[in-house]
Amino acid sequence: MDVYLHSAGTVLPGPPVDIPTLAKRFGLPSVWEQWVDSFIDTPVRHYSVDLDSGETRFSLTDLATTAGERALAAAGTAPDRIDLIVMGTSSPDMLMPATVNVVADRLGVDDVATYQLQSGCAGAVQALDVARRLLRSGEHRTALVLGADSCARHLDLTVDVSALPPGEQVNGVLFGDGAGAAVLGTKPGDNGIALRWTRVRCVGRGREPGQTLNWFGAADRHVDRPAAVEDYQAVQEAVPPLAAATLDEVLDALDWDRGELDYVLPPQLSGRMTDAILARLDVPDAREVSCVRETGNTGNALPFFQLERLLPHMITGDRAVGVAIESSKWIKAGYALEKVGP
Amino acid sequence: MDVYLHSAGTVLPGPPVDIPTLAKRFGLPSVWEQWVDSFIDTPVRHYSVDLDSGETRFSLTDLATTAGERALAAAGTAPDRIDLIVMGTSSPDMLMPATVNVVADRLGVDDVATYQLQSGCAGAVQALDVARRLLRSGEHRTALVLGADSCARHLDLTVDVSALPPGEQVNGVLFGDGAGAAVLGTKPGDNGIALRWTRVRCVGRGREPGQTLNWFGAADRHVDRPAAVEDYQAVQEAVPPLAAATLDEVLDALDWDRGELDYVLPPQLSGRMTDAILARLDVPDAREVSCVRETGNTGNALPFFQLERLLPHMITGDRAVGVAIESSKWIKAGYALEKVGP
Repeated sequence: MDVYLHSAGTVLPGPPVDIPTLAKRFGLPSVWEQWVDSFIDTPVRHYSVDLDSGETRFSLTDLATTAGERALAAAGTAPDRIDLIVMGTSSPDMLMPATVNVVADRLGVDDVATYQLQSGCAGAVQALDVARRLLRSGEHRTALVLGADSCARHLDLTVDVSALPPGEQVNGVLFGDGAGAAVLGTKPGDNGIALRWTRVRCVGRGREPGQTLNWFGAADRHVDRPAAVEDYQAVQEAVPPLAAATLDEVLDALDWDRGELDYVLPPQLSGRMTDAILARLDVPDAREVSCVRETGNTGNALPFFQLERLLPHMITGDRAVGVAIESSKWIKAGYALEKVGP
Repeated sequence: MDVYLHSAGTVLPGPPVDIPTLAKRFGLPSVWEQWVDSFIDTPVRHYSVDLDSGETRFSLTDLATTAGERALAAAGTAPDRIDLIVMGTSSPDMLMPATVNVVADRLGVDDVATYQLQSGCAGAVQALDVARRLLRSGEHRTALVLGADSCARHLDLTVDVSALPPGEQVNGVLFGDGAGAAVLGTKPGDNGIALRWTRVRCVGRGREPGQTLNWFGAADRHVDRPAAVEDYQAVQEAVPPLAAATLDEVLDALDWDRGELDYVLPPQLSGRMTDAILARLDVPDAREVSCVRETGNTGNALPFFQLERLLPHMITGDRAVGVAIESSKWIKAGYALEKVGP
């Protein structure tokens, strides 16, 4: 049974924050700006927190609710048609209740199955995957899929950035905040785009995490340990081959010729990494759908920004493959779309 | 297509901690002991942290790995047969990587689909539900389902308990730590127990959360706000009717007569609440399977303790229904088992 992708919607909080603004805010030298430009090449990101006042202007619930409303509006779907909500995030507002359930309340959705995945850069695809399989299992008809992340809780604006080890500095410039959503259904929507395939595999056996993100509890909040660390070298080495393997698996599973692929939605860790991955994917005839240079890496939200850019351009017969790689404990995630009508 | 429950396995950390021990540790008066006895009636719980030294002896990964090993051993299933892992927890070791992926590594499981649900008292049933539906969707054959929680990060052992509002004191005595696991498959196992039904519904529209559990980030870890709060009165009022409605929905869906029910596995918020809920469920001929007085409320782990107690007693034809209610944002969760052979 095919499942269809009816729409995508997204939201970014606040204005774009560029590298010179970050350098000025944290008192960093111009060589730092050049290092970020050449090493990362992600010109802007958006934050839920105001960098000057420290005020958090949007909760994760706020962002996810807005993205959900936009996806529902784009699909022309009333909230009471939703009977399943699956959300992915690495940065829930609270441990309990799960943010997805507060979002459901805010959207006016009640008496539905809700699930929140604790996930990172592969989380949007995990959520699409769970929603697709639950729709295929027969009980549900229309799903809202959400992906959202916020750095606000992790951005200690009092810290001396120049004193941090590079692995922590990198994290700070890679990520931004945002939310995305999609409406999925068991019937073709107005756009006739089938979600033909989803696949998620954890391949972390015997490998150290490439990225860690910590939380503090009441008992250990005074303990001094890093909140977020990225082993950028491990990520740079591991992600391109994992992305290439994921693309190959999707093409093989659907028996699609790589020369027939119309669009590719590559992982978006950073501008620089996207270029490196794209070269490795070896699909020169497919058009690239990327967003990281305008959005920053929005984690669980990011693939929805790519989908929002892609959907209006697809014409009947078009095929697209998306890939996301989570470097936390090494997760391969891929999905495929095909416009089958109208 | 039916899905089968092959085994259950559990683990509790450390020795049982009784009410007099808690009273002595936190310098609380004997009237407090009597209040807990009469109001809660959960004689013991187990902690991952040593109450005297403050040392954390088991991570959530440790607990979940042990429970997973025990469930695999009980089912006679080699780790390399697992092709799906679904875990529920409210207290992951880190935000990234998700604990389920570290557990997969520790179990020696690789290249499998893994999902971690951010969930509370309904989380074990959510995890069983997702695993059952994913098995039914056809790609997977053998699933390991995990539920685990640890209070260690939330238990600030330096706090003056007597100065806390009752909503925070209650939380401290209700919950304990533990992990549980089950092996599910698409083929009948040696025990021939079918997982006939699972259903999870969030019904929180317009209702305040009955329980909240917070985390602190690097940016807000010095902010003074309660880590965990329970609106025990709201929980006492809402949970029994929600549990009764859930049981009725399961019986209706399967067209089972309530007089034919052999076992009932009621919610286990506390000893006192379990008695109140059981009276409301109105299944006098069904045998009760409870554990909270020996385990404490272990959150996402708890239904696995009930299943571990139930499975050896089921004979062919026996029917059992389990119910879990999450008061965080009000989730109804139910499941049904039937021994169809051998």
